[in-house]
Amino acid sequence: MSNEIKSLNEECGVLGIWGSPEANQMTYFGLHSLQHRGQEGAGIVTNDHGHLMGYRNRGLLADVFRKPEHLTQLTGDAAIGHVRYATAGSHGLENIQPFLFDFATDQFALAHNGNLTNAVTLRRMLEQSGAILKSSSDSEILMHLIRRAEGPDLHAQIKTALQQIRGGFAYLLLTQDSLIAMLDPNGFRPLSIGRLANGGYVVASETCALNTVQATFIRDVQPGEIVTIDADGLHSDFFTTETTHSICSMEYIYFARPDSDICGINVHAARKRMGKQLARETAVEADMVIGVPNSSLSAASGYAEESGLPYEMGLVKNQYVGRTFIEPTQALREQGVNRKLAVVKSVVAGKRIVLVDDSIVRGTTSKHIVKRLKEAGALSVHLRIASPPLKYPCFYGIDIQTRDELIAAHQSIAEMCATIGADSLGFLSEQGLIDAIGLQQDAPYSGLCMAYFNGDYPTPLYDYEAAYQASLKADKEQQS
Amino acid sequence: MSNEIKSLNEECGVLGIWGSPEANQMTYFGLHSLQHRGQEGAGIVTNDHGHLMGYRNRGLLADVFRKPEHLTQLTGDAAIGHVRYATAGSHGLENIQPFLFDFATDQFALAHNGNLTNAVTLRRMLEQSGAILKSSSDSEILMHLIRRAEGPDLHAQIKTALQQIRGGFAYLLLTQDSLIAMLDPNGFRPLSIGRLANGGYVVASETCALNTVQATFIRDVQPGEIVTIDADGLHSDFFTTETTHSICSMEYIYFARPDSDICGINVHAARKRMGKQLARETAVEADMVIGVPNSSLSAASGYAEESGLPYEMGLVKNQYVGRTFIEPTQALREQGVNRKLAVVKSVVAGKRIVLVDDSIVRGTTSKHIVKRLKEAGALSVHLRIASPPLKYPCFYGIDIQTRDELIAAHQSIAEMCATIGADSLGFLSEQGLIDAIGLQQDAPYSGLCMAYFNGDYPTPLYDYEAAYQASLKADKEQQS
Amino acid sequence: MSNEIKSLNEECGVLGIWGSPEANQMTYFGLHSLQHRGQEGAGIVTNDHGHLMGYRNRGLLADVFRKPEHLTQLTGDAAIGHVRYATAGSHGLENIQPFLFDFATDQFALAHNGNLTNAVTLRRMLEQSGAILKSSSDSEILMHLIRRAEGPDLHAQIKTALQQIRGGFAYLLLTQDSLIAMLDPNGFRPLSIGRLANGGYVVASETCALNTVQATFIRDVQPGEIVTIDADGLHSDFFTTETTHSICSMEYIYFARPDSDICGINVHAARKRMGKQLARETAVEADMVIGVPNSSLSAASGYAEESGLPYEMGLVKNQYVGRTFIEPTQALREQGVNRKLAVVKSVVAGKRIVLVDDSIVRGTTSKHIVKRLKEAGALSVHLRIASPPLKYPCFYGIDIQTRDELIAAHQSIAEMCATIGADSLGFLSEQGLIDAIGLQQDAPYSGLCMAYFNGDYPTPLYDYEAAYQASLKADKEQQS
Amino acid sequence: MSNEIKSLNEECGVLGIWGSPEANQMTYFGLHSLQHRGQEGAGIVTNDHGHLMGYRNRGLLADVFRKPEHLTQLTGDAAIGHVRYATAGSHGLENIQPFLFDFATDQFALAHNGNLTNAVTLRRMLEQSGAILKSSSDSEILMHLIRRAEGPDLHAQIKTALQQIRGGFAYLLLTQDSLIAMLDPNGFRPLSIGRLANGGYVVASETCALNTVQATFIRDVQPGEIVTIDADGLHSDFFTTETTHSICSMEYIYFARPDSDICGINVHAARKRMGKQLARETAVEADMVIGVPNSSLSAASGYAEESGLPYEMGLVKNQYVGRTFIEPTQALREQGVNRKLAVVKSVVAGKRIVLVDDSIVRGTTSKHIVKRLKEAGALSVHLRIASPPLKYPCFYGIDIQTRDELIAAHQSIAEMCATIGADSLGFLSEQGLIDAIGLQQDAPYSGLCMAYFNGDYPTPLYDYEAAYQASLKADKEQQS
Repeated sequence: MSNEIKSLNEECGVLGIWGSPEANQMTYFGLHSLQHRGQEGAGIVTNDHGHLMGYRNRGLLADVFRKPEHLTQLTGDAAIGHVRYATAGSHGLENIQPFLFDFATDQFALAHNGNLTNAVTLRRMLEQSGAILKSSSDSEILMHLIRRAEGPDLHAQIKTALQQIRGGFAYLLLTQDSLIAMLDPNGFRPLSIGRLANGGYVVASETCALNTVQATFIRDVQPGEIVTIDADGLHSDFFTTETTHSICSMEYIYFARPDSDICGINVHAARKRMGKQLARETAVEADMVIGVPNSSLSAASGYAEESGLPYEMGLVKNQYVGRTFIEPTQALREQGVNRKLAVVKSVVAGKRIVLVDDSIVRGTTSKHIVKRLKEAGALSVHLRIASPPLKYPCFYGIDIQTRDELIAAHQSIAEMCATIGADSLGFLSEQGLIDAIGLQQDAPYSGLCMAYFNGDYPTPLYDYEAAYQASLKADKEQQS
Repeated sequence: MSNEIKSLNEECGVLGIWGSPEANQMTYFGLHSLQHRGQEGAGIVTNDHGHLMGYRNRGLLADVFRKPEHLTQLTGDAAIGHVRYATAGSHGLENIQPFLFDFATDQFALAHNGNLTNAVTLRRMLEQSGAILKSSSDSEILMHLIRRAEGPDLHAQIKTALQQIRGGFAYLLLTQDSLIAMLDPNGFRPLSIGRLANGGYVVASETCALNTVQATFIRDVQPGEIVTIDADGLHSDFFTTETTHSICSMEYIYFARPDSDICGINVHAARKRMGKQLARETAVEADMVIGVPNSSLSAASGYAEESGLPYEMGLVKNQYVGRTFIEPTQALREQGVNRKLAVVKSVVAGKRIVLVDDSIVRGTTSKHIVKRLKEAGALSVHLRIASPPLKYPCFYGIDIQTRDELIAAHQSIAEMCATIGADSLGFLSEQGLIDAIGLQQDAPYSGLCMAYFNGDYPTPLYDYEAAYQASLKADKEQQS
Repeated sequence: MSNEIKSLNEECGVLGIWGSPEANQMTYFGLHSLQHRGQEGAGIVTNDHGHLMGYRNRGLLADVFRKPEHLTQLTGDAAIGHVRYATAGSHGLENIQPFLFDFATDQFALAHNGNLTNAVTLRRMLEQSGAILKSSSDSEILMHLIRRAEGPDLHAQIKTALQQIRGGFAYLLLTQDSLIAMLDPNGFRPLSIGRLANGGYVVASETCALNTVQATFIRDVQPGEIVTIDADGLHSDFFTTETTHSICSMEYIYFARPDSDICGINVHAARKRMGKQLARETAVEADMVIGVPNSSLSAASGYAEESGLPYEMGLVKNQYVGRTFIEPTQALREQGVNRKLAVVKSVVAGKRIVLVDDSIVRGTTSKHIVKRLKEAGALSVHLRIASPPLKYPCFYGIDIQTRDELIAAHQSIAEMCATIGADSLGFLSEQGLIDAIGLQQDAPYSGLCMAYFNGDYPTPLYDYEAAYQASLKADKEQQS
Repeated sequence: MSNEIKSLNEECGVLGIWGSPEANQMTYFGLHSLQHRGQEGAGIVTNDHGHLMGYRNRGLLADVFRKPEHLTQLTGDAAIGHVRYATAGSHGLENIQPFLFDFATDQFALAHNGNLTNAVTLRRMLEQSGAILKSSSDSEILMHLIRRAEGPDLHAQIKTALQQIRGGFAYLLLTQDSLIAMLDPNGFRPLSIGRLANGGYVVASETCALNTVQATFIRDVQPGEIVTIDADGLHSDFFTTETTHSICSMEYIYFARPDSDICGINVHAARKRMGKQLARETAVEADMVIGVPNSSLSAASGYAEESGLPYEMGLVKNQYVGRTFIEPTQALREQGVNRKLAVVKSVVAGKRIVLVDDSIVRGTTSKHIVKRLKEAGALSVHLRIASPPLKYPCFYGIDIQTRDELIAAHQSIAEMCATIGADSLGFLSEQGLIDAIGLQQDAPYSGLCMAYFNGDYPTPLYDYEAAYQASLKADKEQQS
C-alpha cells in the first residue's frame, strides 16, 4: 500500500455489482477501497434495463467522479468498475477502463486486472485480418477475440476467446443481461464473490471491497472459471481444466489491503506471521522494532511480539502526500528534505533499531531511511525484510518487467547491506514465507507464485520469453 | 491527526524562514508537515530584498501550489507561511493567510494561529474610528492596532498593539527587514525556533516542521515573548511580564504530529505513556488491543504493552480519503457503507476487544465503530479513552466553542457507555494525563491548559463570557 | 457565420499541411479561420519523420489548445486538423477528429467533412464480419474499409474503399509518408489546395484558411479525385469517372466566410450580387436597408446599393456572445431580454425598414427581430431573404436532416409573412440565386446543389431514403 | 469596440438595478452589453432585504459566472455590477469590483468607472492617519473618505467625501436601503437612468444596457449630481455647483457601442456623420470604401454614402478571436500570419481603396493593414481617420496615460503617412468632429472633452501634473 514510497505497482482493481438499485454508488465505494491497486485512472459502466452507460477519466476515483452527477447519471442495477495503474506508454484516456463497446445490435463493457503474455502476437494477428484496435489494452484484445469467435452463442464465443489468451487475468464483462467474471488458469490475481444484503451479487479483486459494500463473502472465483450472474442467479463453467493454483505472493506481502482475505487467508494476519517468522530467522539484539509505514506495520508488530522488543513509532508518514506535489529541487534533496517520511528523533536517538520493511526493490528508499535514522542518533539499524530477496520480474500483472531495477538481482545480501548502509540485513526465507502465509493448496509452493524470488514461472512466457532469456544471459556474462 | 473522522479541528499552523535562498521551498515543505493543523487554505509570502510577494488560495497546500511557478515566483530569502482551518462563516478567500499589507511606504505580512477573545470588541472600536476591515481575521485586527499605535518605532508599536489583545495567539510578522514571532502570555499554542544548516532560522508551530527542513531545534518561544530575527541575529523582548504557562493539553492528546516535541516532550512518547497509564487505570480482561487510526495508535500500543495483550490491526483507515469525496446517500449510510474506516473481520471475529481512542467529542464515531466491530463478530468491545471526558469548549484556538456538541458535557460515563453501545467505557484521569505528559512547569496543572476537562480557564473570556455563562446556566436548569 | 443565432450548422472543417517546419502552428491558425464550420471539438495530428502524434478535445480551438505546450508538443512538418460540429448523440470525446490509428506496423490519421448516406449499412456489414467501431464517425468507417480492402498497395486499397461509400465527403488522410485528400463524386463540400511560400502544400475546406497561412491558391480538389502529396510532390488520381459537380449552394448563402472563394467565386461578392438581385426581384418603398449581422451584411449592402436606399446599422450583434452563457429565465425571455442582438432604437424609430436576411429556417429568429424592430418604433418591416425558401433537408453534411423544423416546408410565403409579423416578405428566386452566384459548370443548376430548395437530390439517398419518403408522404397527407 | 485589435481601452462599465425580483439576471444581461468597456474582471453584488452578497472574478462575464448558481445565489431585488479593464499592476483579484464592505453595523457595495487624479495624495493621507487599504482602487478610497467624513447622516458624509476627490468618476453605491449614483463635476463618463417595465430603475454606463433589460431611458445623470434611489423613488442632489460639461469625445469615436445614445446623440449616427464629414474634408478618387471592423464600419458607410463610392467588405474580422489564444511565433508573425483580420483578396485586388478607421494610436495596426491590402493587389490605399490626430493622454478613465505610445504626438501627418505606407492620409478636423457629433451644450467644444486632440484639459491634473509637464518638456527638447 505504500506505493507513494516504493516503485512497485499493482496494475488494476476490478469490481462488479449485480442486482442493486444503488449499483453506481456500490461500485464507487467498493472501488474506493481498491484504490491502492491503481491510482491513475478510474471508470464505471452501469446497466439500466439493458442500456449500458459509462464514465471514466484520469486520476484518483475522487478526481474522476468530481461531481455527484458524474455518478448519479449512471443509472441501473448492475455495474462494473475499474481502477488502473498505467504502465509506461499507455497513459492515454483511451486506455482507461471499463471499455464500453457499442455495437449496432448490442453493448458490452469489459474491465481487466492482469497482463496477457501473448498480447503482441494476438494484436498482430488481429490487425492482419483487418481489425482496428484503439487502445493498447488487453481488454480490447479479448473483445475482438470474442467478436470473431465462432460459436452458437456468446458463452461459447467467450470460451473460445479465453482459450486463445495466456498470462494472468481477472476479467469482468458486463453484457445487457449478465455480469461475467473470468479468471486465468493459474488464478494469479485474486477475485472474490460476495452476496449483497438484498440478494444481489458483488465480484471484486479484494474482499475489503466486499466489506465496504456490506456484502457477505461467498467464495473466490476459481482458476479457469467463468462465473455468469444473471436474472437466474449464479452459474459456473470452466474454459479449461488444465489449471494450477499460483496466486501472486506479492499480494500477501505488499499489495493487498491488510483487511482483505486472499484465498481465505487474512493479509494482516499473514503479514504479522511473516514478521514473527522473520524474528525467529533473523534475531538480533536491539532496543526496539519500528516498521516502515504503512505496508510494513503488521510485520513489524509481529516481529516485536515475537522478539519481545517494544514496538515503537520511529517513522511517521505524512498522510497528506498526494500525487501532484511539487518536488524539492536538487539542493534541498541533497539536504535530505523529505516530505513523505519523518524520523521521530526523540524516539530513535541513542537506540539500537530493528527496522522492518516488507520488501526491497531498488534499495534507494531503504538507504535513505537508514541514513536518516542514523542522523537522528540511532546507534545501529538492523534492516529486516519480511520476504525473500526480489530477483525476478513479473509478467502476470505487476509492473516489474525487467531485472534491471532489482538490486537483489545483482548484489549479494552482504553487498546490499553495504549499499544500504545498515548494520545488518536479513530476509525471510522462501519456505518461511510459504509457511507464514499458510496457504494449503495442492500445488507447487502450496499454491503461491514464487517466481519473483526464484524465477520459477508457472507458465511459458510467450511474447516475453526472448527478452527475458536475453536479460538472464546478459546478467550472467556481466557477472563472469 | 484523524481530523477526517473526528470533528475536532486545530485552527492553524504557521511557519517562518529567515536567511535561506530556498525560503519558498523550505516554507512549502515545512508547511506540508503542518498540514494536519489546517486543510482549508494555505499561503506563503516571501521577502526578496525588502520586496514582499505572496500567493494563497483555498484547499490543501498541494492544491494551492498546483504548479511549480506558484512557488518559484516567490523569490527571496525570508518567508512566512500558513495553513488554516476555516471556522464557520469565514471560508472566503480574503480570510486566507498570510495577509500581505501594501502601504505606500512599506509592506508587512502577518500569519496567525490561535483565537483572540476580545476580537469583536476591538473590531467595533476600530470601525467606530473609521477603520475598514476586509476580513474576519484576528491578523487584520493586529495590523490595524499596530498601524494606529503611538510609539517611536515599529517595535514599540507592536508592543502597544499586543498589550491590547487577549486570548491565545502565535503570530508571525514578516517585515521588509525582519521576521517577528509573538506568543500570548499563556503560551496556549506551541511555537518553536530552529536553526538551519546554513545559519538561517525557522520558526514553526511544531518541531516536526523543523525536522522536515533539516533544522536543529533551539528553543520554544516563551509566553509573552516577542522574538525578532533580522540581519543582526535573534533578539528577545517581552510585551508583558504577567505570564503563566498553559500549553493546550489537546496538542499532546490529539492535534500535534507524533514526531513533534512540545515543550520538550515527544508527542508519540507522551501518547504511549497515556496508553500505559490508561491500562493501569482501566484494566479489563480481553484478547487484544486495537487503536482507532491514526491518532490513537500510539496510545493503543502503550496500552497493549502495559497490559500484555497483543496489539492488532482491527481497523484500517483508507489512505485515499480526500476532501471532495462524494458521500453515500442516506440508503447506503443506513446500510453502514463506510469508505473511511474498515473493520478487519478475520482479526476481530470471536475476540474480546480493547478499543483505544484518544478522545470522544460527540460519540457518533465511537458508536459507529463499536457497532461495526460487533457486526464483524467481536464478542465484546471495551472502549478506553486516553484522555479525560471532554466537557468544556475552547476559546484559544480550537474549533469547539459551544458545549452543545460535547456528549460528556451532558452524559455520565455510564450513560455514554450505553449510548455508544460498548461493553465498558473508561477514561484516563486528569492527574493520569498530567503525569503521562510529564510537563514540569511551575504553573497550575504542571503548565497545561486543562479547561476542556474541568472548565478551569486560565484567563477571563471577554467577548465569550456572557454566552458561556448562559450556556452553563441553561445546562444546569436542564439537568435540574 | 451567424451560427450563434440561427440553428443551421455546418458539420466540419478540415485542413492539412505538408512540408512546413511550423506545421503545427500553420494548422492551428488555419483551423482558426475555419472555426465557423464547427465549434464543438477540434484536434490536430502531426507527422514527425513518420511518427504521428495528436491532440484533440471538446470546445473551440482556443479551448482545446489552451496551453502553448498543447501545440508545441506536436512536432513535425506535416499535419492535419479538424474542427467539428457535433450532431445529436455524438458529443463524445471519442468522436472528435482527426482520428489517429496506431497499428503495430503503421499509423494513420483521418479527418472528414461531410456525411455518408450509407454509413448505417456499412457499419452493420463491418460489425457482422467482426469489426469493432469505437465511434459513430464516418472517418472510422473509411479506415475499416481501407484496412479490409484487397489490393496491392495502400493507394489501391483506398480506391476500393472510396468506391464503397456514398454521400458527401471531403477526407484528409495523413500517412507516415504522405498527405491524401479525397472528394466525393459530386464535390458537395469545398476543398482547395494552396502552396506555401516555402514550397509546401496546404489543403483546406475554404480558401480563407489558405490566406491565413499566407499560401497561394492553386486549384480546388475535383469531384471523385484522390490527391496525394508526398516527398515527390502532388499526384492526382480518380477513384471514379462518374462525377457531376453539385457544390452546396448553402456554402455561398450562409456557411462559408465572406473572404473565401468557392470554385473561383468570392463569397462576399456572390452575396452582394444576391442582395442586388433580390432588390431587383422584390423592390419596395422604404427609408433604409438593414442586415441581420453578421452573415447577411454583404447581401444587405448589395440590396442598398441596387435600391439606392441608405444602408444603416439597425441591429448590433454582441461580439462577446460565447458558448457557455447563462440563459435568461422564462420571465426575462418573455420580457424580450436579448443578449445577442440589439436594436438601435434611434436609427429605426419612425422608419420604413427593408430587413435583409440570408435564409429562414424555423422563422423564430425573424419573428423576434421583426417584433423588436416594431417595438423600437419602426413604421414597417419588409423582410427580404437572399435565397429561395428552404424546404428540404440535406444529407450531405449540413445538420438539417428532417423537414419538420423547416417553416417553408409547411407554409406558403403569405403564411410565413403572417407568422413572422412582417409587412411584406420576399425571397430570391432559384434562378436569381444561380445567376447571382455565377458558377458556370456544365452540370444541372450550373453545378450547384439546389436540393434544399427544390428536393432535386443529385444522388440516391440510400439509408435515408425510406424515412425521407415517409416524411414527404406524411406532409402530403397532412396538407390534404 | 475593436479593442482586440487596437490598444485603446476603456477602464470600466457600471450598472445598477433597483426594484426588480430578477435584479441578478438584469444586472448580468445588462453588464453583458457593457462587456466592451472591460474584459478583465466582472462582479455583481445584490441586496436581499438589506443583506448584501456578491460574486466576482477575473475574466469575461461569461467566465466569471460560469455556472448558473454563481448567479442564482445572488438573491434580492437590487444590485450593482461592474466590468473592468485592468490597468498595469492592478490585475489582482482584490481589485475586481464591486467592492463589498462588511462593517459590524452595516454593509455597502461600490463600483466605479473613471480615474481619480488625486488618488495618490488621498491614499497617502489616509494611510498616515492609520487606514489600511487592501486594493489600489479608487473605489476603496471613496469608501474610506465616506467612513471618515463628519456629518449627520450618510448623505452628508457622501457629499463631504465627493468634495475631496478629483478627476473623472461615475460611482454606483449600493447600501442596505438605497442605490446611489454619483458623477464628477465635468461628467467625463456617461451614466444614464432608465425605468424598468415594473417601475424599478436601472442606472448604467451606456443606454445599450437599458435596452438590453427592456428599460425606458429617463435621463442622464448630471455633472456633480448625486442621484439616490430608494423605497420612496428617485431623489436628486448636487455635491457641487461648479460644473462644466466635458463628456469624453472618444466615447463617440471609439468606445461606446453603436446602439448607445450618449447625451441624447446616437453613437452609430454620430459615427456615420463623422464619416460623411470626413468624406467632405478629405475627398479622393477611388474605387471603393472599406472600413476596419468593427468600430469603423459606421464611419466607413457614411464616407461611402457621401462620396458615392461603393461600400465593400474588404476586411473580415475573425469572430472567434478570444483572449487566451496562442500567439504565432516570431517566424510566422514575419510571414504575416494573422488570425484576427483577413483581407478579402478578390474584393480589393486591382482596386483603389479608401480605408476608413476611427483613430490611430501607435500606427502599427494601420501599417499592417495597408501592407496586407497591397499584398492582396490593391492599387492604392488612402487612409482616412474619422477623428483628429490623437496627441495627448487621458487622465479621466481611458488607458492612455503617457504620450510615448502616440504616433501623432511625435510625427506630422506626412511622416505618419510614410510610416504607415499609405498613398494618402487624412484626418477629420476638430471642428468637423464637434459638428458631426452635434452636442449642443453651453460649454467649451459644445460640451466635449477634446483634450486628446489639443491638450486642453478641463481640470487641473493634480498628481499627474508634474510627470505630464516633464513629458511635454522632454518632447519639446527632443524636437529642437
